[in-house]
Amino acid sequence: MEKAKPIGVFDSGIGGLTVVRKLSSTLPNENIVYFGDTARVPYGSKSNETVIEYSIQNTKFLIEKNVKAVVVACNTASSVAIPELRKRFSIPIIEMINPGATAALKATRNNKIGVIGTRATINNKAYSKEIKKFNENVEVFEVACPLFVPLAEEGWIDHKATYEIAEEYLKPFKEFGIDTLVLGCTHYPILAKVIQEVIGDDVMLIDSGVASSEIVRAEIDRIGLTTNSNTLGNQNFYVSDLPIKFKEIAELFLGREIKNVQKVDVEHLVSLG
Amino acid sequence: MEKAKPIGVFDSGIGGLTVVRKLSSTLPNENIVYFGDTARVPYGSKSNETVIEYSIQNTKFLIEKNVKAVVVACNTASSVAIPELRKRFSIPIIEMINPGATAALKATRNNKIGVIGTRATINNKAYSKEIKKFNENVEVFEVACPLFVPLAEEGWIDHKATYEIAEEYLKPFKEFGIDTLVLGCTHYPILAKVIQEVIGDDVMLIDSGVASSEIVRAEIDRIGLTTNSNTLGNQNFYVSDLPIKFKEIAELFLGREIKNVQKVDVEHLVSLG
Repeated sequence: MEKAKPIGVFDSGIGGLTVVRKLSSTLPNENIVYFGDTARVPYGSKSNETVIEYSIQNTKFLIEKNVKAVVVACNTASSVAIPELRKRFSIPIIEMINPGATAALKATRNNKIGVIGTRATINNKAYSKEIKKFNENVEVFEVACPLFVPLAEEGWIDHKATYEIAEEYLKPFKEFGIDTLVLGCTHYPILAKVIQEVIGDDVMLIDSGVASSEIVRAEIDRIGLTTNSNTLGNQNFYVSDLPIKFKEIAELFLGREIKNVQKVDVEHLVSLG
Repeated sequence: MEKAKPIGVFDSGIGGLTVVRKLSSTLPNENIVYFGDTARVPYGSKSNETVIEYSIQNTKFLIEKNVKAVVVACNTASSVAIPELRKRFSIPIIEMINPGATAALKATRNNKIGVIGTRATINNKAYSKEIKKFNENVEVFEVACPLFVPLAEEGWIDHKATYEIAEEYLKPFKEFGIDTLVLGCTHYPILAKVIQEVIGDDVMLIDSGVASSEIVRAEIDRIGLTTNSNTLGNQNFYVSDLPIKFKEIAELFLGREIKNVQKVDVEHLVSLG
């Protein structure tokens, strides 16, 4: 029965659905419980203290749902809350930064890696610290792209304005001459087409969601809790708010129809803190 | 002493600082207490239920600070929470929609009024309902502009991409032939230059913050609590989070240096609920 327990995934909102998309293609038989903190989104512009507090509440909520592991499908939370979460909880906590950093190190040929993310992720230098742990000679260039999240949520995935904004944000990387670019926010895979066109085909894009799904596979195997099931896993979605156009936007991110969505009261989350 | 009490102003974040800017130019001797709910911003993409709950908490917080009136400097909260706030609290509650609607009705010559705002404000048809209460023959055209808030907060007040996005959002108004456009979100005055250029000089822009400041003047006069002071009023600012670049962005909105900023715990707000 322990093996049938779901994998928990949380994010500040809907961005983590791009991670669920990759996770369910890597581990199609696993059950998944997703929590999106849509009442308190975005985390990327909030202080570290607040993000840690929310992350603890979200993890406790998933543990209430009896999960066997928790995926922090939010780069901002990954960049500030992981030590605190691992101190408090004994189940595996899988985050986005190390898998993305490791994948970038494998991909680079010229040792010049770019990272894009929210202000909080970039300000914390989460990726450059992680990359330099493994190789001090790699140069890491980090740029915050605050407008990419609202553009993705507006569904402007190939709008002229999206190209303009991408040109502006990505300009410094062309000077740096990077050959690898980490999409350091779970919203950004939605804009991958524009980003790839603007940065050029010579630059390899790294999706932390893909990289972290492999770590999830290894971690549940390590604790002996890989499912025995041969059928497609169930997926249940919880959100702290059901905003206008939620279904439409969520389906753009998840890549298919979203079902089994329930609302959770913020009071309940706060009471868990 | 009652007359020296401050006027309370709240918003989901920093947008309401454009209202404080107008309020302090209309009523320079009044003390002001501002609360920006930066830990839970934005309200514009959240459900009505959540916005009402947060608005009650924010009003209770300002009442703890001993205010004589509350300005709801947030169009989203104004469009959904006012009946509930007026039911629960006896001090004057001043909102954005009626003042903006009334100013637009005075300005229009051809009875074709445009309104721009967040998804929540537009979805609730807040402005068209209010305008039609006074004149059923006026045609009101409403368009949600979700990217204007992050653009204003990024400080891209005359960037090429901002013009592109404004062109896209404002296109329908040109077909409608409006002569008056309500800036139905307190962030939008920051982008007024771009909006005016794109929509054309023939269209009059209505800033609800200006219109509502006159209502505040009338309301505190009505209850006999206009200050006797002849010196410049104090201003105190409270926020539920102090995000990265807060000071820089807040000063763009307030139009001058921001001082006396204190952080309030979200737990405290929730406990007031």
